Amino acid sequence: MKAFVHVALKKTVLDPQGQTICRSLASMGYTGVKEVRQGKFFEIELENGADPERARREIERIAREVLTNPVIEDFTYRLEE
Amino acid sequence: MKAFVHVALKKTVLDPQGQTICRSLASMGYTGVKEVRQGKFFEIELENGADPERARREIERIAREVLTNPVIEDFTYRLEE
Repeated sequence: MKAFVHVALKKTVLDPQGQTICRSLASMGYTGVKEVRQGKFFEIELENGADPERARREIERIAREVLTNPVIEDFTYRLEE
Repeated sequence: MKAFVHVALKKTVLDPQGQTICRSLASMGYTGVKEVRQGKFFEIELENGADPERARREIERIAREVLTNPVIEDFTYRLEE
């Protein structure tokens, strides 16, 4: 079983890295881009035979307590067989 | 219109950051995790009224030529209305 966790800056938090990419794209001639925001994702391979409900709880705890800084970041996750 | 670009190390490239996270999780008592790989994602907001086919081409070029290091990374992308 695999889990995919996405961690991104909250919408209310400035993303200077994304802004820099956006400006660079404009200066390179990519004129159709309005905004860029950057985030991280984690592809987590779980032990085989994990109980789906237990796996979901574990991934949610890992995402909340280890991978995300709750002051400035939000996370989403999904599980895949 | 929005585009989501995922950039990850190629499967054949070692991911020390992911390995460190994996070992940390094990030492913290999360025993169900076999492997972790980390990547980046970019949420790209495009100008309104962009032609979908033109947008797709532009995003693919941006992903290939700006956001990804083709020597060690792969990318995927999807567009959303």
